[in-house]
Amino acid sequence: MTQTAEFVHVTYLAHSKPGTDWQKKANGIAIGLTVGTWTELPAARKEAMQKHLGHVVSAEVVGTDANGLEQALLTIAYPTVNFTPDIPALLTSVFGKLSMDGMIRLVNIELPTEFSSRFPGPKFGIDGLRKQLNAYDRPLLMSIFKSVIGYDTETLAEQFYQQALGGVDLVKDDEIFFDETYAPFEKRIAACRIAAERAQAETGKFTLYAANLTGPVTEIFEKARRAVDAGASALLLNVLTYGYDVLQRLAEDSRINVPIMAHPALAGALYPSAQYGISAHVVLGQLMRIAGADIVLYPSAYGSVALERNETLKIAQALTEARGDVKRAFPVPSAGIHPGLVPYLYQDLGNDQIINAGGGVHGHPGGAAAGGRAFGAAIAGVLSGKTLSETAETSQELETALALWGNPSEK
Amino acid sequence: MTQTAEFVHVTYLAHSKPGTDWQKKANGIAIGLTVGTWTELPAARKEAMQKHLGHVVSAEVVGTDANGLEQALLTIAYPTVNFTPDIPALLTSVFGKLSMDGMIRLVNIELPTEFSSRFPGPKFGIDGLRKQLNAYDRPLLMSIFKSVIGYDTETLAEQFYQQALGGVDLVKDDEIFFDETYAPFEKRIAACRIAAERAQAETGKFTLYAANLTGPVTEIFEKARRAVDAGASALLLNVLTYGYDVLQRLAEDSRINVPIMAHPALAGALYPSAQYGISAHVVLGQLMRIAGADIVLYPSAYGSVALERNETLKIAQALTEARGDVKRAFPVPSAGIHPGLVPYLYQDLGNDQIINAGGGVHGHPGGAAAGGRAFGAAIAGVLSGKTLSETAETSQELETALALWGNPSEK
Repeated sequence: MTQTAEFVHVTYLAHSKPGTDWQKKANGIAIGLTVGTWTELPAARKEAMQKHLGHVVSAEVVGTDANGLEQALLTIAYPTVNFTPDIPALLTSVFGKLSMDGMIRLVNIELPTEFSSRFPGPKFGIDGLRKQLNAYDRPLLMSIFKSVIGYDTETLAEQFYQQALGGVDLVKDDEIFFDETYAPFEKRIAACRIAAERAQAETGKFTLYAANLTGPVTEIFEKARRAVDAGASALLLNVLTYGYDVLQRLAEDSRINVPIMAHPALAGALYPSAQYGISAHVVLGQLMRIAGADIVLYPSAYGSVALERNETLKIAQALTEARGDVKRAFPVPSAGIHPGLVPYLYQDLGNDQIINAGGGVHGHPGGAAAGGRAFGAAIAGVLSGKTLSETAETSQELETALALWGNPSEK
Repeated sequence: MTQTAEFVHVTYLAHSKPGTDWQKKANGIAIGLTVGTWTELPAARKEAMQKHLGHVVSAEVVGTDANGLEQALLTIAYPTVNFTPDIPALLTSVFGKLSMDGMIRLVNIELPTEFSSRFPGPKFGIDGLRKQLNAYDRPLLMSIFKSVIGYDTETLAEQFYQQALGGVDLVKDDEIFFDETYAPFEKRIAACRIAAERAQAETGKFTLYAANLTGPVTEIFEKARRAVDAGASALLLNVLTYGYDVLQRLAEDSRINVPIMAHPALAGALYPSAQYGISAHVVLGQLMRIAGADIVLYPSAYGSVALERNETLKIAQALTEARGDVKRAFPVPSAGIHPGLVPYLYQDLGNDQIINAGGGVHGHPGGAAAGGRAFGAAIAGVLSGKTLSETAETSQELETALALWGNPSEK
């Protein structure tokens, strides 16, 4: 460990009555969440404690809300020597008790490179996944099982095969797939692997299967290793309900040599409020990436589960911007995506994203394979600079999809 | 597994524009979060899927908010066959994707006894802890290390000794204690054990030490077992940053035969909004208890980190009400507690609580031991029906505390 003090800079949006002494409030946080007390310490003790002491970077009023409360942005610097390099330590330290202390929201975290490089980050990242799929210079395409609860292995493998025939790069489980009575984890992984190979024989393209990794945290790592042995090509994890540290330790485990896809389940309990919680780009961007997600799903600005566009761009930025030696993770704007939305998604993020659809693949009148091909055509068309209407002239599947779901970018 | 369908009933508060078809919205949730689709299923398939299908219990408009949005309470019944008995499965299923779908807040969960009895619940609970401490018919008393970051084992053990001399039942670590460079976990547990025994020789009373359990989830269970071997008498866990499942598996591990104390760190990122998130009594009451917390801290209605009184009572109720064979957990209303507040706390919860103070013990002009004794006197006085002023006539420590922090119940 270096002797140079390194700091994590955390910014909070706080609401309080007009005339609040924000500098004092910020100073109370900086001391309270680090050394506890300062002015009462004897001088000799202060010297030893200096390197553990947080400090205020800035505290400024930025506005007044509809109820007349003053809004301030407070940025506090916390010495990284106080933390272990993991998300429980980080979040507990900078927003544990503080989250309960009035109207306060965590809106940004700036991690020094030295500190974030102590996290695993994505094992594969965008470049590694492209290499695996031999898919460069285009967005990837993913589809989701239509329904998983109550279905057996054979039915799911057939569902997988139909999706893979459509040319998708990945297929993911539903995140609510917990009861494995009818379709045990390893058995279903093996069956979908065979289905992927069957489809590959026809299409020339291999499709990854992100199986939903569940179970007790005491067994989940061994289960993930068994999944790899059974032929898993990717894993899906509900990171927020299991805890970021489960993701981090999966990412650190060299035997689990498959990409990890982070599902955002429960994120909406954290990010939507204007006064409380944690910004979406922190929850689904920064923390997911350093903890080791290769692929991160989040609500797109265009579909059924909408997030404000600027927020979605900040998530994608956090996943893909340069950050020392931490690999870049694939953003996956999700929910309610159909082929008519591809131009918007492409305009926002270009090639480095995964276009992901459930109903937009399965709801295609020609079936899931046709649904996948409609997306593939839309992506190829957008990449070649054509409009969707132009592309649909040579793709019956795309024409059908646009007729069903619309083509808003050419309205 | 029984064939009788059992259901978890989950209630949501939703906001939407006036005239929303709430029955339709609720039905969409009940189907969407269970079998995915229903009307399109063939009749034969419906029969097989029936037991996995959620249904609407009620959907009623309850008001209009300040912005003219209609407020509705939606209660959905989810078949327990869809879940494994753990919190990640439960939360992902009933509020995973849904949390991101508009203005929606999870406000209650009703678990059928059959389902909740598949969770460990507290290993000791209120009765077990009372037996351990030989402390019946009174609230317990706890204090918190004044400051932990940057202090070595010897200093902390001395701090522990001073607190134990004051007659407190438990001492807890700060929840932000992650860097163990100066005070390694097992070493500090052993040192505080010796300090507890030293104090016991003087006071006749043993004081438990809840050491903050941290580290990678891949190692945390083994670390907890080592803590027990080193003489740990309790463990503190940041449940929300590590994940409820870590708590559950600690509670299920028979070798970890010490009470587990749940810290609420990060809970404020989930519960305070009126439109989003999860109610405090679910996060800190129901889920903590079934997952296995023996002791649960939460913001009191009286101190520095305030929660609305009715919410605090609902947390305590969830921790202590009859629930099949699941043991009762100790509520610990916390933050900014001083002896003058004891009458309020006692009026709210009676004996079955832990009165917990940090600054209210250490800030006592006579030191931490005197601070503990002031609390002990206050509790004994209230139990015997005396006012604090009357009690202070025979307790110099209490008199000093009341003079410093006030005696609001006799104002």
